[in-house]
Amino acid sequence: MISIEQALALVYETTKPLPTETVRLGKSVTSFLADAISADVDSPPHNKSVMDGFAVRANDVKPSVVFNVLETIIAGDTPTKELAIGSASQIMTGAPLPTGADAVVMVERAELKEFDGKRTVSFDLHSIEPGKHVMSRAASFARGDEIFPAGHQIRPWDIGLLAEVGAHTVQVFARPTAMVIPTGNELVDASQTPGPGQIRNSNGPMLAELLRSLGADVNSPGIARDEVDELRAKIQQGLECDLLVLSGGVSAGTMDLVPKILQECGVKEVFHKVKVKPGKPIWFGVREFEGRHTYVFGLPGNPVSSLVGFHLFVRAALNRMAGVENLNPKTLRAKLSKSHQVRGDRPTWWPGRWVESQSCERIVEPLAWQGSSDLRSLCRAEVLICFPADHGNFAAGQEVQVSRLSNG
Amino acid sequence: MISIEQALALVYETTKPLPTETVRLGKSVTSFLADAISADVDSPPHNKSVMDGFAVRANDVKPSVVFNVLETIIAGDTPTKELAIGSASQIMTGAPLPTGADAVVMVERAELKEFDGKRTVSFDLHSIEPGKHVMSRAASFARGDEIFPAGHQIRPWDIGLLAEVGAHTVQVFARPTAMVIPTGNELVDASQTPGPGQIRNSNGPMLAELLRSLGADVNSPGIARDEVDELRAKIQQGLECDLLVLSGGVSAGTMDLVPKILQECGVKEVFHKVKVKPGKPIWFGVREFEGRHTYVFGLPGNPVSSLVGFHLFVRAALNRMAGVENLNPKTLRAKLSKSHQVRGDRPTWWPGRWVESQSCERIVEPLAWQGSSDLRSLCRAEVLICFPADHGNFAAGQEVQVSRLSNG
Repeated sequence: MISIEQALALVYETTKPLPTETVRLGKSVTSFLADAISADVDSPPHNKSVMDGFAVRANDVKPSVVFNVLETIIAGDTPTKELAIGSASQIMTGAPLPTGADAVVMVERAELKEFDGKRTVSFDLHSIEPGKHVMSRAASFARGDEIFPAGHQIRPWDIGLLAEVGAHTVQVFARPTAMVIPTGNELVDASQTPGPGQIRNSNGPMLAELLRSLGADVNSPGIARDEVDELRAKIQQGLECDLLVLSGGVSAGTMDLVPKILQECGVKEVFHKVKVKPGKPIWFGVREFEGRHTYVFGLPGNPVSSLVGFHLFVRAALNRMAGVENLNPKTLRAKLSKSHQVRGDRPTWWPGRWVESQSCERIVEPLAWQGSSDLRSLCRAEVLICFPADHGNFAAGQEVQVSRLSNG
Repeated sequence: MISIEQALALVYETTKPLPTETVRLGKSVTSFLADAISADVDSPPHNKSVMDGFAVRANDVKPSVVFNVLETIIAGDTPTKELAIGSASQIMTGAPLPTGADAVVMVERAELKEFDGKRTVSFDLHSIEPGKHVMSRAASFARGDEIFPAGHQIRPWDIGLLAEVGAHTVQVFARPTAMVIPTGNELVDASQTPGPGQIRNSNGPMLAELLRSLGADVNSPGIARDEVDELRAKIQQGLECDLLVLSGGVSAGTMDLVPKILQECGVKEVFHKVKVKPGKPIWFGVREFEGRHTYVFGLPGNPVSSLVGFHLFVRAALNRMAGVENLNPKTLRAKLSKSHQVRGDRPTWWPGRWVESQSCERIVEPLAWQGSSDLRSLCRAEVLICFPADHGNFAAGQEVQVSRLSNG
């Protein structure tokens, strides 16, 4: 059985970045930039006022000097008059400084008078240093500066900066198309009342939402019975997508038809079973057809196993399709809030949640868990805690690695 | 000028939760539950096998005993035969245990023989404890148990559990409709090349994406000039929504027409200016018309001020509309990676990012920042760091509160 690291290396080798495409800025959040973005303008584009007030020559400002007001400059205007000695121009926040001006006196320190159509201003200041309330041209960035590197994942607050440098469309890795097929005779839809021996399909909707939250365009053809023809038809549909995720049907039982059908459909097995708990019987393969790849995961039917398999491996494949190079799950170091025991020779990924504390330390609580089909512990889960293999007993306060379930 | 706490109290008093609505599970992620969700089934619904193997009476298992195999039970089946002494039933993962059985021997420890249509099995075990490889009925949760409290914000991995308890639709607070109006004569669209004195509209697209990331249904009628009729027409359009966000036009300058037009349109000012840096000149008001409320924010034109105002106050209003009671920004304690100086008598919310460390401590770096129109520092930002007022110098290692920009 291969290790998590070996499995991730195989995902890396097998999966290729998707083609890139051009999208409007408003559709780009969570996508990964295919190219670096550089500025096509200086920011700010001119020496600009950061206050409402009066543009002045700093050296001229002395108590009881009266200045002639030349004009009023609003953001969006171009100043028309150069400041000569003894003159000032009224200026609004964001507006460009006129030639000659090197500081701004804020409106609260100014007394403006108007007489016979002529405006004058004096200031309640002894002096002002050059540059006061002025942001210099290109202080934030200069034309040609790299603003975002290739591979950056776009967040909502990046959109302002992208708009400022004129990136109204961006080149990103295409979002994958994906299909989720939950399998099992025992499954009924969430809208139905399960009969004897039946349970509702929880994996299908969960996996679909996890895929959507990572940007995939997801389709679900509904539950597939453990029956060859039905499974084959649905799998063939799924092979039209970039990613096909099956749940159930990958253990060694009589009814576990999935790997056989996948093989028949031309899907080449890359690995089956990974040394991880829960989630061991995960299956990964690929089909190449007319130059197009479909990556196929078979996840265990138990929902927590399925979530762990998704978090570790399906997420890695999605990241790789989006051009990401490091496929290891992002982890943070944290201390256990209480002791915890794990069994077996596989590393365990266990649901946990943050414990609020008044310190700067990250503290995590392993949740009570009835085993891999216990979805309930997940309603409190925020992270998965990684317990290394062969350690058994973990003491309160011991340090562990944790990985957030959310993307933030 | 009011404090952040006073402003948040006013947002709380002014804003009301939106009506609730029924949505399909697949549309519910990021929404807030209006009602608690209880289980309508036991989970698991029966004593079930968590392994492929053989259901047995634990007391019967002794070395070299041969059992008659009664039947094969697959997940989804109902067992038809009660286990008598000396018998076992083949059972697959997830399948219900037959009456009489209280343990499962995994397939790897079993030797199955078939002779003349009759199947027998013996086990490579000395004994087995009752309950082995069995998950008891209702071990995860029982019918009637509360699974999620009212007010829970639905995450992708909650969908599995909601599906399991039959919540194929859920009652949630409606997503707000919102409009963003960037104002200013200096603004041109991101697709245009700015002329002299002009800058691209960065605030509008950024605020729209921030609102979308929090679940709002956002519309933007484009840039409004600082011109009464155009502003009024766009504001009247915006007042059809639950939330109207304007950017620019809320300082004291000549061209700051927005508050006047809002008043004319029946929007009642709740507050104007909050003791926070940047973002002081924020405006908040409400219009009630035929029993319907529109909440209106005027955010400063500078993008970082705008982001801080959004993070502290617009987010609070969105949370309140979704039934959330505590509107304070969520913060975590962290240590500063380096010394930092802030000026002025207002608390400062400053862009920062996490510093990776091999310890369990949260460490945060305040980013270099040219002032409130410096969007560039935001391309590295992950959090806002809160520096209390009147402290001035913060040493490396000093503890501060930080608030994540993302929702995760």
